[in-house]
Amino acid sequence: MHPEIEQNIRASFDAQTMMATLGASLLRLEQARVEIHAPILPGSQQQHGVAHAALAFAIGDSAAGYAALSVMPPGSEVMTTEMKINLLRPATGQYLIARGQVIKPGRRLVIVQADVYAVQDKAEKHVALLTGTMIPLPPDRP
Amino acid sequence: MHPEIEQNIRASFDAQTMMATLGASLLRLEQARVEIHAPILPGSQQQHGVAHAALAFAIGDSAAGYAALSVMPPGSEVMTTEMKINLLRPATGQYLIARGQVIKPGRRLVIVQADVYAVQDKAEKHVALLTGTMIPLPPDRP
Amino acid sequence: MHPEIEQNIRASFDAQTMMATLGASLLRLEQARVEIHAPILPGSQQQHGVAHAALAFAIGDSAAGYAALSVMPPGSEVMTTEMKINLLRPATGQYLIARGQVIKPGRRLVIVQADVYAVQDKAEKHVALLTGTMIPLPPDRP
Amino acid sequence: MHPEIEQNIRASFDAQTMMATLGASLLRLEQARVEIHAPILPGSQQQHGVAHAALAFAIGDSAAGYAALSVMPPGSEVMTTEMKINLLRPATGQYLIARGQVIKPGRRLVIVQADVYAVQDKAEKHVALLTGTMIPLPPDRP
Repeated sequence: MHPEIEQNIRASFDAQTMMATLGASLLRLEQARVEIHAPILPGSQQQHGVAHAALAFAIGDSAAGYAALSVMPPGSEVMTTEMKINLLRPATGQYLIARGQVIKPGRRLVIVQADVYAVQDKAEKHVALLTGTMIPLPPDRP
Repeated sequence: MHPEIEQNIRASFDAQTMMATLGASLLRLEQARVEIHAPILPGSQQQHGVAHAALAFAIGDSAAGYAALSVMPPGSEVMTTEMKINLLRPATGQYLIARGQVIKPGRRLVIVQADVYAVQDKAEKHVALLTGTMIPLPPDRP
Repeated sequence: MHPEIEQNIRASFDAQTMMATLGASLLRLEQARVEIHAPILPGSQQQHGVAHAALAFAIGDSAAGYAALSVMPPGSEVMTTEMKINLLRPATGQYLIARGQVIKPGRRLVIVQADVYAVQDKAEKHVALLTGTMIPLPPDRP
Repeated sequence: MHPEIEQNIRASFDAQTMMATLGASLLRLEQARVEIHAPILPGSQQQHGVAHAALAFAIGDSAAGYAALSVMPPGSEVMTTEMKINLLRPATGQYLIARGQVIKPGRRLVIVQADVYAVQDKAEKHVALLTGTMIPLPPDRP
């Protein structure tokens, strides 16, 4: 990956205060594939003590968005326009991993996917599937 | 609304630690219609300083889920199985309001919708539309 | 509605051979609201003899797309980029009605909704909810 | 695959009159993976002469539904409750192929995915991604 793109993504991630609130971190950063981890904090739970759907959504959406950004010119930005999440299993464990990928790049829209896994004692289980659409904002936009 | 259902919903809301983390509160509670408010806290933002999509998702999903719970027998619970969010405008303002409603009740599945508004100086703008599916868990489940 | 826009929509509808295959017709055409009807033909059914989900999808998607087109300049076109359908009840009856509306107009994207009803002996029941995103193609595009 | 399940799926496919209307055929049938082909008939087009989104939806939904049925006991049935389609590219070519798979089996709900490809002179391009939820109806249902 172009170092400027990587720097771009890391700066954007750090500027998302929601990521810090949820304790999320950007772990893997490759062309069209991005991985974000987040612990299941005491403050990130739903009423049964498992990870809130909004935690899986938050890191899945971000992993997908940064996967889109990784295939765009340096200085670009992306915005989510729509995202669907299918919740597959209760998200129990120590932390969640979101793996984002680009399904279809494009100048007007980028179609993305993210898979979210809950990790308990190093065993991963697939807890959510997200598919969505990102709007690319090129660096030379008005 | 049956007082036991209202108590059920309030207890469930209070047990969702994510709601406290995001500063959300349950304001209006009617048969098939529920309203949740959340300030746009310094820690709930995306990279441009507006409300993170996960904030709209979190309160929209909860408002929709509690709308579903409001039409079920006391002692029931609900789980989200899928939720799509369309983001309509940047969520700028002092706080967000999510209004959840039931589109189609059912014994196996409840189809729900939520509309999320950003409020700036008392003016509301529509920032997100969510549609999704809740799984009802009746009180006498095994 | 501007007569040129109405003519634009009617010509586009007539050019969709799938609409003729399904027996669909464009009934109501207003600013931001469009209605399409289709009989439940012997050849439009699923394995239990009720209307196939693809029939509700086809007319719901078109009603939503033409609602989007109705708020755009004459000579424009639209393309669906994503559409989600929630099926609410079995689509039994003589025919289906799809009512499309614009949720949020825009230069880059138009967010739309359609509700589909099955009609039996003049009684309507709500059988599907669609939400989606249209890409506007303005008349002066390259 | 259990021969009774295969027979079950073939009988269900043949009973869907919409599949015959669209000229679709069931080609590959494996555990959790199903493939459906359909020519882009003169009567299956949208206003620009390419395959209508409803054609991709129809065969994608069916391929996903039969993938779900292939992992269920003989005599079962499935119903789609929700399906989202992301359209990736114009569907030009001689025919479409939909490949359905099971993402998560379950007693209450089965989460499925389908990818649709347009084939022109044996070259495939990815034109649509569908994700959805099937409701299993076991053979011994009341």
